Amino acid sequence: MFATITILGPGLLGGSIGMAIRQHKVAESVCIWARRPEAAVQACDRGAADRAEPDLRHAVQDADLVVLATPIGTMADLVTRMKSGLKPGALVTDVGSVKYPVVTALDDLLSGTAQFVGAHPMAGSEQSGIEVARADLFDDAVCLLTPSEVTDRDALAKIHDFWVALGCRVQTVAPHLHDEIVGQVSHLPHLTAAALVNAVCRSDATMLGYAGAGLRDSTRIAAGDPEMWTEICLENQQEIRRALDELIDELGQFRAVLENQDAVGLKALLKRAKHYRDELKFRG
Amino acid sequence: MFATITILGPGLLGGSIGMAIRQHKVAESVCIWARRPEAAVQACDRGAADRAEPDLRHAVQDADLVVLATPIGTMADLVTRMKSGLKPGALVTDVGSVKYPVVTALDDLLSGTAQFVGAHPMAGSEQSGIEVARADLFDDAVCLLTPSEVTDRDALAKIHDFWVALGCRVQTVAPHLHDEIVGQVSHLPHLTAAALVNAVCRSDATMLGYAGAGLRDSTRIAAGDPEMWTEICLENQQEIRRALDELIDELGQFRAVLENQDAVGLKALLKRAKHYRDELKFRG
Repeated sequence: MFATITILGPGLLGGSIGMAIRQHKVAESVCIWARRPEAAVQACDRGAADRAEPDLRHAVQDADLVVLATPIGTMADLVTRMKSGLKPGALVTDVGSVKYPVVTALDDLLSGTAQFVGAHPMAGSEQSGIEVARADLFDDAVCLLTPSEVTDRDALAKIHDFWVALGCRVQTVAPHLHDEIVGQVSHLPHLTAAALVNAVCRSDATMLGYAGAGLRDSTRIAAGDPEMWTEICLENQQEIRRALDELIDELGQFRAVLENQDAVGLKALLKRAKHYRDELKFRG
Repeated sequence: MFATITILGPGLLGGSIGMAIRQHKVAESVCIWARRPEAAVQACDRGAADRAEPDLRHAVQDADLVVLATPIGTMADLVTRMKSGLKPGALVTDVGSVKYPVVTALDDLLSGTAQFVGAHPMAGSEQSGIEVARADLFDDAVCLLTPSEVTDRDALAKIHDFWVALGCRVQTVAPHLHDEIVGQVSHLPHLTAAALVNAVCRSDATMLGYAGAGLRDSTRIAAGDPEMWTEICLENQQEIRRALDELIDELGQFRAVLENQDAVGLKALLKRAKHYRDELKFRG
């Protein structure tokens, strides 16, 4: 599909992308760059790339496709530094969890230089780092592509095929709609898990000694990297606040039926939740 | 350990208790009773008991130990109907998810007839029924014993050994403390999962099509039986309301730091959550 792909950022996502590209033979050669050169070498050693390149402009100069797999706050700066080194007509995609601000900034920076197509493969976990990267991370994961009004059609088709080749189920949504969706299905659950474990422990952390599988599963994502999630949540704070308001309202409904000993009302709320959750199970 | 054990209720817990008793040879003979006689026969067929007995008083007459594995709202009635059939000095235990009201009622009903020791093996799941029962359900599960001021010491020791023999890690707490604990580590997570999935779907259920592993895991328990959870939550509504208030307060803290674009405050909340959740992981 591509002669050379360059990945910027050798973490869980960047490393797994490299492994998946090599396993599925999506490119003839994979180059990886990291802010710390030794991290790129380590990613190479683990099979994420064919070569590590410490210089950013050298890393991208042969690339038909550049994949930005660094924290969203670093992307505009990286693009600014690398763009004069890009091949004419090179493709650029990313893995950022928030899209409207990223797409707006990168469309602007790359205008006339390269073709940018925003992407968000929803395959992270509470773990991070090259140590947990794996070639099958994207198998059956949803990947949201977020073309804007300036996105090139051919570039969109090629980036679509790229993520499909890595194993993703690709869907296309507008950047602002993406942020609304992930605010609800990803960022809200993350803050809910964090608030839940904080609530359980706030007067007495020994409560954790009594935890069963329910509390464990429902708070797993609260172990995610605080630094990364702070950045993500602040970028998408408006959508998340709206989602938090809806959750607080739903919790208030449970509180009210409990206070009123309203068995019919409580069962109706629980049935609605079971109906939706069963549908999620049915969807695989 | 026992000659005969009788289990009342052939669901996930009752069935699994029977299978575990037989696998670990905790009794010479296991009898099972169900409200619907064919359900007891089915449980027998699946290996949960040596014999099914349709008559309640016949079912318990030879039992050294009776295990109540029916919904909590049925327990007092069952005990009233069976107690004249119990052997003198028989032991009775249960699996109820709420303890103070159950223990109070059963201590009273069985006074002078049998020795009751309340128990709560925390090994349920969002699934239910004999179809999902298994002998290893209790391996490494926490089982809370809830002796009251009238509980016999020898009976407590025997019931302790019974649950240990089934694979549980047994801990002893007062009934009212039990209800506070499970209000936080079990009932609150259940209602949180339900409220979360209801919030995500309330304006648009197609959001579920974008769900990743985070939303899936954090809402798994919302698929539990609405009937059973309605009963449990109403029995423990005071403790749950207190826990809900704390969760709503924690969510409000997240909302406030987002609104104020307070990166330091947000990261501090997320770090606290990660610290607690990592501890939970460390505990196994």
